[in-house]
Amino acid sequence: MRMLLAIFLLGALSCSSSMDYQDHPNLILTGKGVQAMRASFGKVPLFDETIETTRAQVDAAIARGIDVPMPKDLAGGYTHERHKSNFFTMQKAGVLFQITQDERYANYIKEMLLQYAEIYPKIDKHPAERSYARGKFFWQCLNDANWLVYTSQAYDCIYDWLDTETITKLNQELFRPYAEFISIENPQFFNRIHNHSTWGNAGVGMIGLVMKDEELVNWALNGLDQKVPGDFVKDNDGGSIQLEGQKEAGFLAQLDHAFSPDGYYTEGPYYQRYAMYPFLIFAQGLANEKPALDILNYRKGLLIKAVDALINQTNAAGEFFPINDAQKGMSLSSRELVNAVSMAYHYGDNDPTLLSIIAEQGKVPLNDSGLAAAEAIAQGNAKPYEYKSMELTDGANGDEGAIGILRKGQLTLMMKYAKHGMGHGHFDRLGFLLYNDADEVIQDYGSARWVNIEHKDGGGYLKENTSWAKQTLAHNTLVVNKDSHFDGKVDVAEKSSGTPYFFSSAENLKIVSAKELNAYEDVQMQRTMGLVDIDELENPLVIDMFSVFAPAGTRYDLPVYYQGELMSTNHNIEIQKDLIPMGQESGYQHLWLEGQMDLQKDAFSMTWFNKKNFYSITSAVEAGDKALLTRIGANDPNFNLRRDAGLIQRRTGGNTLFANLYEVHGRYNYSDEIPINSFSSIASVEVLHHSADYAVISIILKSGASYLFAFSQENADENQSHSLQLKDEKLEWTGPTYFSKRTKN
Amino acid sequence: MRMLLAIFLLGALSCSSSMDYQDHPNLILTGKGVQAMRASFGKVPLFDETIETTRAQVDAAIARGIDVPMPKDLAGGYTHERHKSNFFTMQKAGVLFQITQDERYANYIKEMLLQYAEIYPKIDKHPAERSYARGKFFWQCLNDANWLVYTSQAYDCIYDWLDTETITKLNQELFRPYAEFISIENPQFFNRIHNHSTWGNAGVGMIGLVMKDEELVNWALNGLDQKVPGDFVKDNDGGSIQLEGQKEAGFLAQLDHAFSPDGYYTEGPYYQRYAMYPFLIFAQGLANEKPALDILNYRKGLLIKAVDALINQTNAAGEFFPINDAQKGMSLSSRELVNAVSMAYHYGDNDPTLLSIIAEQGKVPLNDSGLAAAEAIAQGNAKPYEYKSMELTDGANGDEGAIGILRKGQLTLMMKYAKHGMGHGHFDRLGFLLYNDADEVIQDYGSARWVNIEHKDGGGYLKENTSWAKQTLAHNTLVVNKDSHFDGKVDVAEKSSGTPYFFSSAENLKIVSAKELNAYEDVQMQRTMGLVDIDELENPLVIDMFSVFAPAGTRYDLPVYYQGELMSTNHNIEIQKDLIPMGQESGYQHLWLEGQMDLQKDAFSMTWFNKKNFYSITSAVEAGDKALLTRIGANDPNFNLRRDAGLIQRRTGGNTLFANLYEVHGRYNYSDEIPINSFSSIASVEVLHHSADYAVISIILKSGASYLFAFSQENADENQSHSLQLKDEKLEWTGPTYFSKRTKN
Repeated sequence: MRMLLAIFLLGALSCSSSMDYQDHPNLILTGKGVQAMRASFGKVPLFDETIETTRAQVDAAIARGIDVPMPKDLAGGYTHERHKSNFFTMQKAGVLFQITQDERYANYIKEMLLQYAEIYPKIDKHPAERSYARGKFFWQCLNDANWLVYTSQAYDCIYDWLDTETITKLNQELFRPYAEFISIENPQFFNRIHNHSTWGNAGVGMIGLVMKDEELVNWALNGLDQKVPGDFVKDNDGGSIQLEGQKEAGFLAQLDHAFSPDGYYTEGPYYQRYAMYPFLIFAQGLANEKPALDILNYRKGLLIKAVDALINQTNAAGEFFPINDAQKGMSLSSRELVNAVSMAYHYGDNDPTLLSIIAEQGKVPLNDSGLAAAEAIAQGNAKPYEYKSMELTDGANGDEGAIGILRKGQLTLMMKYAKHGMGHGHFDRLGFLLYNDADEVIQDYGSARWVNIEHKDGGGYLKENTSWAKQTLAHNTLVVNKDSHFDGKVDVAEKSSGTPYFFSSAENLKIVSAKELNAYEDVQMQRTMGLVDIDELENPLVIDMFSVFAPAGTRYDLPVYYQGELMSTNHNIEIQKDLIPMGQESGYQHLWLEGQMDLQKDAFSMTWFNKKNFYSITSAVEAGDKALLTRIGANDPNFNLRRDAGLIQRRTGGNTLFANLYEVHGRYNYSDEIPINSFSSIASVEVLHHSADYAVISIILKSGASYLFAFSQENADENQSHSLQLKDEKLEWTGPTYFSKRTKN
Repeated sequence: MRMLLAIFLLGALSCSSSMDYQDHPNLILTGKGVQAMRASFGKVPLFDETIETTRAQVDAAIARGIDVPMPKDLAGGYTHERHKSNFFTMQKAGVLFQITQDERYANYIKEMLLQYAEIYPKIDKHPAERSYARGKFFWQCLNDANWLVYTSQAYDCIYDWLDTETITKLNQELFRPYAEFISIENPQFFNRIHNHSTWGNAGVGMIGLVMKDEELVNWALNGLDQKVPGDFVKDNDGGSIQLEGQKEAGFLAQLDHAFSPDGYYTEGPYYQRYAMYPFLIFAQGLANEKPALDILNYRKGLLIKAVDALINQTNAAGEFFPINDAQKGMSLSSRELVNAVSMAYHYGDNDPTLLSIIAEQGKVPLNDSGLAAAEAIAQGNAKPYEYKSMELTDGANGDEGAIGILRKGQLTLMMKYAKHGMGHGHFDRLGFLLYNDADEVIQDYGSARWVNIEHKDGGGYLKENTSWAKQTLAHNTLVVNKDSHFDGKVDVAEKSSGTPYFFSSAENLKIVSAKELNAYEDVQMQRTMGLVDIDELENPLVIDMFSVFAPAGTRYDLPVYYQGELMSTNHNIEIQKDLIPMGQESGYQHLWLEGQMDLQKDAFSMTWFNKKNFYSITSAVEAGDKALLTRIGANDPNFNLRRDAGLIQRRTGGNTLFANLYEVHGRYNYSDEIPINSFSSIASVEVLHHSADYAVISIILKSGASYLFAFSQENADENQSHSLQLKDEKLEWTGPTYFSKRTKN
């Protein structure tokens, strides 16, 4: 009897502790972490809410039943979207099983995985043939890799709950062949330095960690010792399969090459967001299973820095700068960032300002990071995140261009002089974008794509992405002789980057200046932009000096894509009776010319209104300048392009300086109808000097006050003194920038 | 000594009680009300907050100093906006003086009024000559009347605090002449049935109440016994100065004529909102000073009903339907509605559902109504306002057309078959608009105007308001033979109204049907729209049957102005290489034809996306039909028009039925990029029968299910039985509507 009781107790003990001391979960969840989560029930609101939301989603999916259809559709189609929702749901079900110990969740995953194991040996490559690396369940290996990244987490959560026979079946008939398919059977996908490969590496590595399959983990970390067959040269986006001089591959090489030391990702924040998930989630698995690798401190904590870089590439609504190929509206609230920001909090240095972003996201990942962040928020530790002005370098060594971000008051200005960004890059050297709080003032078009929306060519890139969105004309930068930068050739653009010249985040005078010497033959361009406080203005003034050195007779088009409704200009608009496309190529074929102005006055001025504020541009005018009012939408047979407005300053000449000022002013709302400060405060802007060495402008306000801005274009040394004779006065200053109110005009 | 003490005590007593039992304030504030407000300090959050906000505004204005400039500018210009802000500030300062007893506020008003009294005798009519009734401080008497409505309130608040000499001066040198100017000196302004006159009547009446000037009060209530000189025929908006058969004028006549018995105002909600303020605020003064008039129960409590009618003419964001001349975005949060809704609560029957609207407004008027509402909200009495389907009749007797509002789930559909709406009316008989929650699905353009924004022609109506916004083509209704309704003539349109035919707010089948027999010669039109639940659809389906009887060879254009980006159609779009205006007049001169489709299939289908949802239209096709994709913006030299998209169904024929279905379906957001239900569920819509008596369509879903909708077009009797032989089946039903799932196809 005593013996029996002992056995019973032992059984009970081993049963109750079976989840605590086992091998799995140990990928993203850990036994210890799961205990903490269970202990937190009812005490940590944000965590509780996320569990409840997740439970509702998964319960609804379970109620709808399992479907593992034969692959057929492209993105947006049923089979694609179903397999996608399957892996999201399995991952969530796995976490719920661990937290709630409700076996319904484990059974759901087991049943679905067995159906996948059933079907996998029977299917060949996906029937759609458009990808350079066709997948099996999806049209491209990339999506198959997504599946594995999420599904390996689910598998880890039920691994020890499964019987040996099922494990053996799944390992041998589903997961190992699946991992081989997206690695050794598709090296042109797996062995790149590219976000596609990051997903591939992470998927293979994570399932390897779960299965304790060291070979897979090794492939994932270090790449394949295998040459990519020579017939794979480009991917579907025009990106090179093998980078020039690329010797390494695998996850560690991605970490070495994909990010700059500042955590900037050359494809831009839209793709960085996408790539961050596999980077971080695999890193978390490695931290748990391979602590000796110390992956989270790799390259001085690069992964955490990368999250911070990403947070800083947003407007006030948390939406990423839509540079390069990017769908607008992608933001810090995306699932990838929900994971990333909590991880950065937990594995970084518990920065309390990250908590305010997490609180704004309104949910946390259901893991150690999420619990830590939710607990800290519940304890009232959150502090506002402080967005700063910063320059983020590009290139693995940080010496291949950069983007400069200036912030002041409600304004955010971003200028791009980075690398091209591979297949997803746009020909936008020295382009800029400007936000007033969350509102676009001067917009970047983003990509011509409706991601995953089947109506629009299956959700992939539309042909207008190449013919319009990537072209220089679609950006707020200089188009020379009607051609895009680098003649629109990615290979050529990839060979060089913009050249950072000067960056200052000084409180009273925030400046970014960069050069572009390669985009056009015989043309040297330098753009200098500043955010300056002027007593007479309610908001900081944006100064924009675009300096060009080029042969006489060069045709310049300097577009800005303003958002809103045109209020007035100081020139008469000659409107077009009929609309004719502005050209045949380089994006001009997509622009209608709605109206134009022959600029006669000293300065051109235009005011527009958007949502709640007024905006004005004032431009220095040279003889023969024109201002063109344009509308996107010509040659657009499937109505793929937005009918957005543009303003192009057109000039023909040689060496020249474009001097523009942007004001954000006043307000108006439709329910009180009282306009405040609806007019520009600027009377004029004049170019006082332009040479290779210096650019000098004067800013004349309607109040009569005037300001002088001078910039040294060839020597950015902070200690260098400068002396320059203007028509009526001699300027002397030290450092690259001079800005001062003038005592007399 | 005893005598002296008695006198001293008497003085002290009369001093301390001087505010309690005196004559003023008794216009909007009352002595008793003010006591209650003072007693409420710190106890009623919404009232406290409103006081604090108001105090901050007025203190800032006092700090800026007084300026009473010589009149010069149009709306949007300095002198106009300054005089406008002066009267708003004086009104607020008056209330603050009464509530806080801080004499700074009284002194500010006194000082400003003395400056007005100083300048008034010296100025002639405003220098701008564009108004049919030029004001003095403003370019039109209307604005001078606005000034008096607000300023009389301020004057009432300090009346008893002023010395007799100042009162005499202000009464004789400012207010009496001011009141005479906008009444007997401008009868063409004062003696109309029009919102302009409402302001005039209220201003004159209110200052009369303050000054106890019975003559002024009598003019205000009953109009002038004075004929309008014959050279005043039209106002600046093309509205008639004297209505046909108009015998009366003045405030009581406005109440008799301006509203229908349902509280609908023929100019539409934008102007009703504007007119409600003088209607209600003068009524409040009359209720206080002339209780015997029982004005708030006039015409069975018409004024309170009117507020309710106004609340019901909004979308989910509280924005008014932008019918007739209306700037979009005007909403329940406007200052006029802040006053109106609290008054309706307080003087109505304390409807707790109004409190939720007041809480949403976030402020209350600083008077008895506002205090009552704020107290009730503080006590937790607010209940959600329930927006219902309703028909609001037009015309003083409710027999001149109507608007029909159908609401179901998130959808709001409004069809207009009312009177023309005088000078602010649009040629939009049988037009409709559709909202999904707060989002426009099918939009009304609104007016072509930027109210008060000086950039845009001084903030007045732009010429495109007539050439585009008022034209039938700018609305979602039928254009016959390229001409607007009534050939675009207001006088003719004013002679008749649309004809309500059937309205049902039944839960399962909400229907509105109306006829228009006068808009075009020899053309009889009837539109029947419904919101129906269909099991297979996630949202109610919108049915739209537009029945026309006209001679053979008639050219029909049926436009809909959809909001959003086109996703796909089921026909190939033939795009235009160059864009050419679609015509010379009737609005066609402002439309570009971007692309067209020769409709070949049984049904035309198009899907678009806006903000977060997908939308589809499915249309029955007849041989020769075309679908045109249009863009507003041709012949627009000042860029006054928005570049909005349109879809026109074009047909040439005689008697015909346009059958259209609208679906709201699915969702998508840019941060998860997962499209849900992005395709229409409708396979086709077919016209099974069309005669003078009946219209019958079948709705075929992609699921294979089909529904039949039949409507009796000549007999709307709920008890009438109908029998109709279709090709394959015989239909029998009772009442005007038949709707049922078909058992076989």
